[in-house]
Amino acid sequence: MTTEVLFEKHRGLLERAIVVCGSRESWTAFPDAPADHPGGEHARAEGEAEFRSQLGRVFDLEGPGALAVQTDEVSPYTLEPLGVSYRRAGADELFAAAQGAWPRWRDADPAARTGICLEICERLFRKNFTLAHAAMHTAGQSFGMSYAGSGTNALDRGIEAIAQAYSAMDRVAPQAEWTRRFGTTEVKLAKRYRLAPRGIAVVVACASFPAWNVYPALFASLVTGNPVIVKPHPTSVLQMALAVRICREVLTEAGFSPDLVGLAVDTVAEPITKQLVRHPLTRIVDFTGSAAFGSWVEANAFPAIAYTETSGTNSVLVHSADDLQPVLRALAGSLCLFSAQMCTSPQNIYVPRGGISTADGTIGADEFADALASAIQAISTVPKRAAAVMGTVQSADTLRLQEELVELMDGRGRVVLKPAPYEHPAFPGARTGGPLLVQVDVGDHDLYGQERFGPIAFVIECDDAEQALEQASRDAREHGAITAFAYSSDDSYLDRVEEAYAVAGAAVSSNITGPMPLNFSAAYSDYHVTGLNPAGNASLTDDSFIAGRFRVTQSRRLA
Amino acid sequence: MTTEVLFEKHRGLLERAIVVCGSRESWTAFPDAPADHPGGEHARAEGEAEFRSQLGRVFDLEGPGALAVQTDEVSPYTLEPLGVSYRRAGADELFAAAQGAWPRWRDADPAARTGICLEICERLFRKNFTLAHAAMHTAGQSFGMSYAGSGTNALDRGIEAIAQAYSAMDRVAPQAEWTRRFGTTEVKLAKRYRLAPRGIAVVVACASFPAWNVYPALFASLVTGNPVIVKPHPTSVLQMALAVRICREVLTEAGFSPDLVGLAVDTVAEPITKQLVRHPLTRIVDFTGSAAFGSWVEANAFPAIAYTETSGTNSVLVHSADDLQPVLRALAGSLCLFSAQMCTSPQNIYVPRGGISTADGTIGADEFADALASAIQAISTVPKRAAAVMGTVQSADTLRLQEELVELMDGRGRVVLKPAPYEHPAFPGARTGGPLLVQVDVGDHDLYGQERFGPIAFVIECDDAEQALEQASRDAREHGAITAFAYSSDDSYLDRVEEAYAVAGAAVSSNITGPMPLNFSAAYSDYHVTGLNPAGNASLTDDSFIAGRFRVTQSRRLA
Repeated sequence: MTTEVLFEKHRGLLERAIVVCGSRESWTAFPDAPADHPGGEHARAEGEAEFRSQLGRVFDLEGPGALAVQTDEVSPYTLEPLGVSYRRAGADELFAAAQGAWPRWRDADPAARTGICLEICERLFRKNFTLAHAAMHTAGQSFGMSYAGSGTNALDRGIEAIAQAYSAMDRVAPQAEWTRRFGTTEVKLAKRYRLAPRGIAVVVACASFPAWNVYPALFASLVTGNPVIVKPHPTSVLQMALAVRICREVLTEAGFSPDLVGLAVDTVAEPITKQLVRHPLTRIVDFTGSAAFGSWVEANAFPAIAYTETSGTNSVLVHSADDLQPVLRALAGSLCLFSAQMCTSPQNIYVPRGGISTADGTIGADEFADALASAIQAISTVPKRAAAVMGTVQSADTLRLQEELVELMDGRGRVVLKPAPYEHPAFPGARTGGPLLVQVDVGDHDLYGQERFGPIAFVIECDDAEQALEQASRDAREHGAITAFAYSSDDSYLDRVEEAYAVAGAAVSSNITGPMPLNFSAAYSDYHVTGLNPAGNASLTDDSFIAGRFRVTQSRRLA
Repeated sequence: MTTEVLFEKHRGLLERAIVVCGSRESWTAFPDAPADHPGGEHARAEGEAEFRSQLGRVFDLEGPGALAVQTDEVSPYTLEPLGVSYRRAGADELFAAAQGAWPRWRDADPAARTGICLEICERLFRKNFTLAHAAMHTAGQSFGMSYAGSGTNALDRGIEAIAQAYSAMDRVAPQAEWTRRFGTTEVKLAKRYRLAPRGIAVVVACASFPAWNVYPALFASLVTGNPVIVKPHPTSVLQMALAVRICREVLTEAGFSPDLVGLAVDTVAEPITKQLVRHPLTRIVDFTGSAAFGSWVEANAFPAIAYTETSGTNSVLVHSADDLQPVLRALAGSLCLFSAQMCTSPQNIYVPRGGISTADGTIGADEFADALASAIQAISTVPKRAAAVMGTVQSADTLRLQEELVELMDGRGRVVLKPAPYEHPAFPGARTGGPLLVQVDVGDHDLYGQERFGPIAFVIECDDAEQALEQASRDAREHGAITAFAYSSDDSYLDRVEEAYAVAGAAVSSNITGPMPLNFSAAYSDYHVTGLNPAGNASLTDDSFIAGRFRVTQSRRLA
């Protein structure tokens, strides 16, 4: 297909995506239930078979580099190494390939690049079962989350970025005629404005949810004309390797060099990320990972620009509620969802020392914490529910963080719920682990005042809901936060909460109960990360996520 | 006037500015000929009188700080100190005042902020004669340039930034209703999206052309909700002090704190810029000045974001021309304009060793250089023309740079035109200095491969026009350039030139002769600086000049 045909093929989807980026209503480009995949049961079986046939084999991907290297991929479901070997190239080889591929892509029409990127999205959706199995056995998500969260929802965030980038490029007039009098003479100039892509982009992915951040970054850079080098986490490579292969296939079919999207493979023992970030040809860095590494990237990427999403202390303010049961169920669901290994998972739950007003009277902090533990156990101790909601724990280190915290408490506070693995119905040896719920005092800031990654939550007793808001919003501002949640029957309290977090730069969800996971973030509608606090400097998908990836160069001649 | 009334008052102007930012046609908000000022001769006389009455006096500006300090302002026209004393505040005092003023401004409606900023622009235009005299006797520009370039044109760039910022804010939906099915339940959320200004902005101005960069930066930050601290160069304070006073007056009248726009005053002996840039409350830095200081700002502003415009090696490629005379006149005009103290002034003029093809035969490099010297002298030795075009030299250091270069040449190349001051018709002792024109070889890269600030130009002999393009565009890419100029009768050469500079990130003007100054940069139409090379990371005015100054924070409740 020519690039014109590709653009026309996807024009309707693009236009719809542009509309919903403006209106921010609910929409998805692809159905997110596996049963609705156009390939039906056949695609499902084929996807799983394709995944299985890859295990223990060399991953077939052309590109620079020669040596086949096994990374540190171990399925959290089987605890067996995936045994996939990848072609490994040095940083210079990867950059040379990208640099060589760049000029034709840089000079291509934005519509051509847009059509190709949307075609890639469609192909990724077609392969969504294969990709989902890869996500499941590297990131450790449940199959449902691997298919939707790491599949269709992640693709929606990618399409959102494509739509926003297309709009941004479309706002730049390609030419103008300019007439002005100088003295008695009228000067008429023909001006041309070219979109100038910034240069090679490095996308550094996290281990537990790579697609969700890689797709927007990859497509934002690619559609604006930049080559991209994708650097997955060494314990979570396969899904991104599959995605990169699909990118390269579509690019090749469209007549462009596949080296516009490269794969950088490293191992835990020999990491390559810092080399990539500091490479003299790097112009853009997108990073998802720890706050510490993210800060390093932000401070060291220059002269490249950096877009980061890291982590923080997401908080819940429980002030009052007519009925506490739906609140407890919502909180428990969110604390269990993918074993709280999401950057949007809540961690710090503030409860007034005097208790929470409900229609049934005041519920004290101890009672609340115990009730929350029960609500968690209603998920975490029922293997079928636990498997669907919690999935597995991506890294064994995460379980150690739970032990570490209990040691740190050193007698302070109370362990309300000890983490308890559940037996996975399909994968008996899977690395599972239930939430650790502890109750501490607002004074124990050394315990809760930073991200404790994974299934760890604090019930924090504080003097009152105002102190809770002050402490939680200050932590958001100073240590970062992406989300915040509040429960109150008092609208004026919720207004104050929203105002405080608007300044602190976290997204607030108030009084939300029901079947939607609390920390569900919808493409086209929910801004993800604000860039206003240490949890990241980039936002999916505002103007600034796009604006730096291309600039405008102009030329003038007499008309 | 209420803020609603102010917005309505300027709505027509805003809408027109938004249209021309898109179409990039020629437009100006204010007439740029002094004779067309609505205040007529009276305003002109009053402006000069107001300027004179300020000399030797304390500058009347409320705000933090107490001590009146004399900066290093010396008129390049009279060589006498202006003798103006300014209130000087420490960084902490300035930031505390800005921080205190912020919340109401942050929470104000974008339309209210827009109306106020446009009212400030109108007031600045009303006071344009006063401001022009201040620019003249600090920056050293001619009166005409002080009035237009530092006045109306600079205001147009400010209005352009306001219009682009308004559009960017307007693109963010203030709210949405979002409905999606989870399982069998339909979840309906009411979402609110707030514009969240980033925080206190520091605007660092250069000595020779402060308004042109301060206005866009000041208004881009202010209209998006951020307080601004303006830090003028200690030798060039008065115009910015007057502008800050007008900002504060309008803000006060509109019911906001004047401390939303503060003035940071320092001296050459005790500079304060680094303190301001590194202050923990700084969130945005706009910097105009040297490449060395600009790089420091870019590398050290973090966690603040930095927008820089520095300098580079602007080049001219002379390949061929039917008639060389208009080319020489255009080049001479541009080399003389404000004594080449503009960031857009050309410096490196490449000429093929074999000569330039013209309708009258081939003109050799020596002959070209001599003819260019004559064209320069037709301006620089005619005091009335020289005064109108060249103005004065802002800093005595600039003249020393000319001497330094001649020493560095150490026998290499040829001094084609020695710098010769002219006698200013109105200010006999004025610090004037004509261009130094030297002829060197393309191998003498140590001489021309960096910015030589002020009236210094190189005629660079090269093997051919292709080598010229390669060297000049590489220098642009590696050492920075804002503008480039080319003369050729061969359209395919000009196409290659445009392509090379599009990648190198400099704006190209081809075959331009006639009355328009070559390096004239039109607000709403010409992108100024691309951000793609070391001459700066910001562009007037693209999306990325605006995007980082505010973010979006969201909140969700069940609808």
